Amino acid sequence: MENLQQRSSGTSYNMVTKEILEKLRFICGEKFVVNDDESCTIYGSDETEDLLFKPEVIVKPSDANEISAILKLANTHFIPVTPRGAGTGLSGGALPVHGGIILSTERLNKIIDIDDKNLQCTVETGVINQHLRDAVEAKGLFYPPDPASRGSCFIGGNLAECSGGPKAVKYGVTKDYVLNCEVVLPTGEIIWTGANVLKNSTGYNLTQLMIGSEGTLGIITKVVLKLIPLPTETLLMLIPFRSAEKACEAVSAVFRAGITPSAMEFMERDAIEFVMKFTDVKVPLKEDHIAHLLIEVDGNNKDVLFKDCEKISEVMYQHDCDEVMFAESAQQKADLWRARRAVGEAVKSHSVYKEEDTVVPRASLPLLLAGVKKIGDKYGFRSVCYGHAGDGNLHVNIIKDGMTDEEWNRKLPLGIQEIFELCVSLNGTISGEHGIGWVQKNYMSIRFSEGEIALQKGIKKLFDPNNILNPSKIFA
Amino acid sequence: MENLQQRSSGTSYNMVTKEILEKLRFICGEKFVVNDDESCTIYGSDETEDLLFKPEVIVKPSDANEISAILKLANTHFIPVTPRGAGTGLSGGALPVHGGIILSTERLNKIIDIDDKNLQCTVETGVINQHLRDAVEAKGLFYPPDPASRGSCFIGGNLAECSGGPKAVKYGVTKDYVLNCEVVLPTGEIIWTGANVLKNSTGYNLTQLMIGSEGTLGIITKVVLKLIPLPTETLLMLIPFRSAEKACEAVSAVFRAGITPSAMEFMERDAIEFVMKFTDVKVPLKEDHIAHLLIEVDGNNKDVLFKDCEKISEVMYQHDCDEVMFAESAQQKADLWRARRAVGEAVKSHSVYKEEDTVVPRASLPLLLAGVKKIGDKYGFRSVCYGHAGDGNLHVNIIKDGMTDEEWNRKLPLGIQEIFELCVSLNGTISGEHGIGWVQKNYMSIRFSEGEIALQKGIKKLFDPNNILNPSKIFA
Repeated sequence: MENLQQRSSGTSYNMVTKEILEKLRFICGEKFVVNDDESCTIYGSDETEDLLFKPEVIVKPSDANEISAILKLANTHFIPVTPRGAGTGLSGGALPVHGGIILSTERLNKIIDIDDKNLQCTVETGVINQHLRDAVEAKGLFYPPDPASRGSCFIGGNLAECSGGPKAVKYGVTKDYVLNCEVVLPTGEIIWTGANVLKNSTGYNLTQLMIGSEGTLGIITKVVLKLIPLPTETLLMLIPFRSAEKACEAVSAVFRAGITPSAMEFMERDAIEFVMKFTDVKVPLKEDHIAHLLIEVDGNNKDVLFKDCEKISEVMYQHDCDEVMFAESAQQKADLWRARRAVGEAVKSHSVYKEEDTVVPRASLPLLLAGVKKIGDKYGFRSVCYGHAGDGNLHVNIIKDGMTDEEWNRKLPLGIQEIFELCVSLNGTISGEHGIGWVQKNYMSIRFSEGEIALQKGIKKLFDPNNILNPSKIFA
Repeated sequence: MENLQQRSSGTSYNMVTKEILEKLRFICGEKFVVNDDESCTIYGSDETEDLLFKPEVIVKPSDANEISAILKLANTHFIPVTPRGAGTGLSGGALPVHGGIILSTERLNKIIDIDDKNLQCTVETGVINQHLRDAVEAKGLFYPPDPASRGSCFIGGNLAECSGGPKAVKYGVTKDYVLNCEVVLPTGEIIWTGANVLKNSTGYNLTQLMIGSEGTLGIITKVVLKLIPLPTETLLMLIPFRSAEKACEAVSAVFRAGITPSAMEFMERDAIEFVMKFTDVKVPLKEDHIAHLLIEVDGNNKDVLFKDCEKISEVMYQHDCDEVMFAESAQQKADLWRARRAVGEAVKSHSVYKEEDTVVPRASLPLLLAGVKKIGDKYGFRSVCYGHAGDGNLHVNIIKDGMTDEEWNRKLPLGIQEIFELCVSLNGTISGEHGIGWVQKNYMSIRFSEGEIALQKGIKKLFDPNNILNPSKIFA
């Protein structure tokens, strides 16, 4: 495999001529077309490792019509267009790997309507996840998908990657909340994919085909999202374990006991130690605490939640945990969640690393975790594992630490290959919520047969015959 | 519009020659290839009105490999293949409108695995919905999608139409439970669409593209379904209203009060009267009872459910209902549900009719209902309305009664057109859970633009280049 930190070997088109620039300025307005070096550097990377691919120009259109005009222009001249939300992606989906045009959705930032009669909202896709959460909560409503980057990520990026987050275990992922999308196709045509209804058996499900397609089939400009009533009560527990495998085993036992927590997060000791260095959050860590589960229940009735927590505690103690701790105040809850959400950044601040987004049926988590450690031993790398245990979704952060560049570049792809093969052998897959993007695309054949990939590429070609929209993503 | 009771004007291929028959017998075995007139009559209709299109032959393969061989043969000789589950569909999806081969999935009837560690099951698609429900309930698990035909319909048909049912309002529809499918493509290739996991951001969502595609893109032979813990308690209320519009208004008010019932069904007085003639169920009907809501709540704690019912009652009384009635025994609950599920058949037994599966955002139900009645007045037909009010999904049964054939054939399509236009103007669509199939396909352009339909047809062509699989369905 090529060194991912090098530029792609694909052709850089270099086709954003003076004439094209002028046309882009005509479409978007002078100040919304930028190509100074500083901007190209900022828009040339996202949160994926330390990759940088500078675009030739960044455009910031204001609506679907401007995006349509940009795509028509690009399609005529075969210029690659890379859509970009907030740039918080972890699979390199927003990297302009062939140069060309970055199309930023940052100006599509309007919450158009919160319909509290129908429990729906209509928003532009450049709205920040947290802004939407706050706006609907003010009306007693709830939009559950909550990736760790929710304070800055855009709804559009969440749609592109089908983002999850801790609440997914009870409430599902982004795709479960999307009713209808306005999409600009690579040919410039503007379509709506569905209708603003909870049930829809009218033609093919174009809505779900768009969600998770990582900006390769079209640019979603507006979305109608389902909302639910906001639960009024939550309880949060932190449970230390002397064995990571035991912690993972406890996870599926909770569901078998008939309880569906609203979050069920796993953190290895290392993850907590990194976070304590990176933030001011303190977690009482005894020497034999190898891993923790962070479990939340929510609902409208505190007595019921206390009973659920009692049942959960019983299950935990059956799996040899140390003392179950309850968050006793809103502050403690907020701190614990802040700690959990900071793990990714904390690891990043410690060392060069590579994050994989493995996912398996939840009862196979102990096997996955043990396998990851064994593969690490074989290739000589350390890994910090954490994530959404209730969904079987384990983020594996492989740490460079003291490895030489040569070792890292040679051994890392082999180790990742084996980790992904393990996932698939456990009936899992290679990305649960981060997407394939640029950095995982060489591993797609571990999950899919040639025919299965050819079918997906056929869909890409149908939507984007000239391959201008986010080219070289998902497929090798 | 053509008279739907006539055969399609499309070419009847008549290509199942002696040689083809022999090859089919070689693939499936002698006794699983039948073409006697009685069988062709039985397999030539489903539950859609009184339509009949006889196939040339019926094949009953035992697995994906045999299906693959059949499709390869058909694809080579351009012979239309219509997949068929239990034949309970309401949109004519299983009608072999060009003759050719009916491919029955009745022998794919194995529940392969119920994995109570992962809350998943793997089943062949000819399994009857109720058989699956019973098998998972025996392990304390729950598969929520429950169409009225659940006692006979196949899981495969549920997947093809993305079936819903009363529980959808809380638990979602069929698509929300599908993790992974084994599919035989029209070219004979066998693929898996996803992985057995709750979260998946690995390539395009082929799983959701298959669900609701009405057997036009491939034949689903195995499916991995998500299960949830079985709720232990239910409470059921029947609420009579003096105004159908008030009943519909009460529906969205319940959700705004923070409660999500596990069922929220609407029945017009006529629906209940038909059912009382058709079954032995008795519902106390006063003269001014114009419509009823049937509301169920479920969970694990009876006290909480009683409180929910109190809140719901409050909302109901605010909307001018008559006395709220509780089902006091398991028998009463079963009777009420039996009544609700019998409405379709009861109407069918009364008169020639046409059922439409309208769906709008739930707060628009009063407008939809009023509009349907107005359109009925204009064209001189009566309608019986009932359905899943919590989802905004209203089944409109248009009754022929004393209309002449000429009037019926002339006025019905005009009335339906107006009803669907109304749905779309309310941000709804033309099918919520029955599919487009054969009888609604001429109305697709009310919901979708030319470009949107062309894109869907492009997908069809990609999967089925020779248009052999369930041709002439969904698209006009």
